[in-house]
Amino acid sequence: MSAAIDRYVKENEVRFLEELKDFLRIPSISTLPENNEATHRAADFVVDHLVAAGLENVELIETERHPLVYADWLHAPGKPTVLCYGHFDVQPPDPLELWESPPFEPAERNGNLYARGSADDKGQVFSHIKAMEAIKAIYGRVPVNVKFLIEGEEEVGGLSVAEYVAANPERLKADVALVSDTEMYEPGMPTLNIGLRGLVYMEIESRGPMRDLHSGLYGGAAPNAVFGLIELLSKAKDANGHIQIPGIYDDVEPPSAEEKESWNHLPFDEDEYLKTEVGSTELTGEPGYSVFERTWARPTFEVHGIAGGFTGAGAKTVIPAKATAKVSIRLVPRQDPQKVVRAVRQWVHENSPRGIQCEVRVLSAGPGLMVNPDHPAIRVAAKAFSDIFGKPTVFTRSGGSIPIVGDFATHLGIPTILMGFGLPDDGLHSPNEKYNIRNYYDGIRTLAHFFEEYGHAS
Amino acid sequence: MSAAIDRYVKENEVRFLEELKDFLRIPSISTLPENNEATHRAADFVVDHLVAAGLENVELIETERHPLVYADWLHAPGKPTVLCYGHFDVQPPDPLELWESPPFEPAERNGNLYARGSADDKGQVFSHIKAMEAIKAIYGRVPVNVKFLIEGEEEVGGLSVAEYVAANPERLKADVALVSDTEMYEPGMPTLNIGLRGLVYMEIESRGPMRDLHSGLYGGAAPNAVFGLIELLSKAKDANGHIQIPGIYDDVEPPSAEEKESWNHLPFDEDEYLKTEVGSTELTGEPGYSVFERTWARPTFEVHGIAGGFTGAGAKTVIPAKATAKVSIRLVPRQDPQKVVRAVRQWVHENSPRGIQCEVRVLSAGPGLMVNPDHPAIRVAAKAFSDIFGKPTVFTRSGGSIPIVGDFATHLGIPTILMGFGLPDDGLHSPNEKYNIRNYYDGIRTLAHFFEEYGHAS
Repeated sequence: MSAAIDRYVKENEVRFLEELKDFLRIPSISTLPENNEATHRAADFVVDHLVAAGLENVELIETERHPLVYADWLHAPGKPTVLCYGHFDVQPPDPLELWESPPFEPAERNGNLYARGSADDKGQVFSHIKAMEAIKAIYGRVPVNVKFLIEGEEEVGGLSVAEYVAANPERLKADVALVSDTEMYEPGMPTLNIGLRGLVYMEIESRGPMRDLHSGLYGGAAPNAVFGLIELLSKAKDANGHIQIPGIYDDVEPPSAEEKESWNHLPFDEDEYLKTEVGSTELTGEPGYSVFERTWARPTFEVHGIAGGFTGAGAKTVIPAKATAKVSIRLVPRQDPQKVVRAVRQWVHENSPRGIQCEVRVLSAGPGLMVNPDHPAIRVAAKAFSDIFGKPTVFTRSGGSIPIVGDFATHLGIPTILMGFGLPDDGLHSPNEKYNIRNYYDGIRTLAHFFEEYGHAS
Repeated sequence: MSAAIDRYVKENEVRFLEELKDFLRIPSISTLPENNEATHRAADFVVDHLVAAGLENVELIETERHPLVYADWLHAPGKPTVLCYGHFDVQPPDPLELWESPPFEPAERNGNLYARGSADDKGQVFSHIKAMEAIKAIYGRVPVNVKFLIEGEEEVGGLSVAEYVAANPERLKADVALVSDTEMYEPGMPTLNIGLRGLVYMEIESRGPMRDLHSGLYGGAAPNAVFGLIELLSKAKDANGHIQIPGIYDDVEPPSAEEKESWNHLPFDEDEYLKTEVGSTELTGEPGYSVFERTWARPTFEVHGIAGGFTGAGAKTVIPAKATAKVSIRLVPRQDPQKVVRAVRQWVHENSPRGIQCEVRVLSAGPGLMVNPDHPAIRVAAKAFSDIFGKPTVFTRSGGSIPIVGDFATHLGIPTILMGFGLPDDGLHSPNEKYNIRNYYDGIRTLAHFFEEYGHAS
């Protein structure tokens, strides 16, 4: 990277950190209506800093819920356009008593900045803004065209931004999206995430008798809605977790030999993973597949919650009339969410137990995604990341889902660079969330370097 | 029956009804601590009426929770002793808005008396007291020896009375117990219940990962406590409800050919039962067994409730760490509850899914019971019932459990006459509970007639 940028970041580290602390002091908890004013204040904060960084057409876009912020700088004709995305809303901080310092009073300890939203995503989205500031300050211009789209509903489903992307493909037209809302595989290891699983999330409700019945009087003859749901769901996968719903694996594409081989080089201790991350007596999963394959490249069926009948203290002898489960299927690239939904509906229809009526309600359905690691922007991003951190960039996937990446693919037809500077122990959504301060500065450097290199390379 | 008793009941009908109304006005809801004074008042009411009826040694026995009432009249040497049991506590009346008249303001409509506790059990236990009053008023003495034991915790588990029975076998020594807390098979049809199922009630808790995990990141490798519990429970019975836990059917004794044949003569419309009582699309149960056999003479496995993971509105993608189910097995006579508990523990141990730890907690375990219909007291009771109602008495069983009957069998070594005057539509535990006023009077007549006949027959 240019020595000038490097120096600029170094000279401004203290201010960059203080500004981030100001951002983190705003309790922009998007799920709490009583914090709506704070969430709006966080949007205003983003607007102010985009303007200060030299972005143009900075606009606060009101929505039915929380505002979006748009900005651009489009004076690099012939150069590619990068769409930078991030979010300024945060998760609720509960349980408060587990925080060592208050969640909205940023505190420095051991080289980390502790605060709700420090890693997810204020620290990371602010890096984008500070990288732009540095570039504009040094060069007076940006080597690529950039657009910013920053939302305030990521933690509550991101409906407004999804609608905005669908409705404004021309305004958001770009060559690639850039999202910093993920993590590095381990400290110091530059990591680009090139695969995400999709998600079909459903509620399945079962109904048996018209009302809860006395199990003494009717037990043996009346169908039990809780047991009916248990019977149905137990058939969803075998003891190894292999899904039994016909058609689910039809379009599953295995990772390439090259990608699988690259995973073998990632440091991974299965015993440590079992003990410190999962904390059960043993792992589950399909035989013949590594943990990476199971969690990154295989569809899975999970029951997230189930409720029905009497669940209070003591004993009550009812045959429950109704039960509900929340279930999901994670999808890998090439699986069609709608095809999966149809397969589930058909399977539920064919497997509903005697006397039990089951209803499937789909809460969301989004596809899995892969980014080609040979895409020019990804290649440049990998090099920039590697240049700053001094190590080769690894390509990983995530078993989770980032719906906005699907929206960018569907409505804008562009891939997304998932270049995150978080660490596995940042505690997203948990008490004592933190962001590594070194990663904050090096993230700004990496992003600025990426913009420079991407401009030169194209 | 004697014309004198018949006349006495007729002449005192109005007073008997008004006294029952006074009893019903006392909101003796045993589960609500704020009603403890009322529950105690109901005990005092019982004491007063036992004294007025001419019983002796009337005693209010304080317990850790609600009082018991004891009384006796033991001046019929050489004659058998009958232990009359009932309860003066009632269920909570919720939901209040569904009551047509207030639950503790008894109201007469269509020949019924509507109030909480009218059938369960105040109306019935009060019949015992009024039958004694009539006999003492006419004859100055009772043709048999009688003991009364009336409790105030039946609706909350009956712990105090169970302890009292276990601790006082000498004081409670009798030849037969008499309980009026059941119903007639249909209006006008004298019914003695001679079989009850037992009940083993358990909680099964499953644990998977040490905390709820993100299903995107860990789905495919981490065990899911909710799904683990589903997997386990789904193996408890087959699609027809036949229990798959080894050993469960070992000691099951089928009903005699004679008893089965008698059930064929009971009026029963399976379609009506399905539609108006169960209200599901079809019945379940073991092929080759009638509804009577399934609900009266076969063990059953039920899941009464299940809870685990995320069950709020919307979507949350967790792999739950823990789940709990309330389950029970109904037992038929000759099955040993402790043997069944051991079989369940063994089965859970052998069938806990990979990575899932399951714990079984036993909340209660009581055996099923049969009374020999040829027992002299049962024969007399059947005749007395038939004499008053003018129809042959039918012998039925119940799929439910009445733990006190087991306590009488275990600790006193006596059978119990289950001679109830309720009707199937009385709405026990439901809004608009009622007791048929004609059955109230005829119940008093039947009980007095039984005491007379049992004294003469022995």
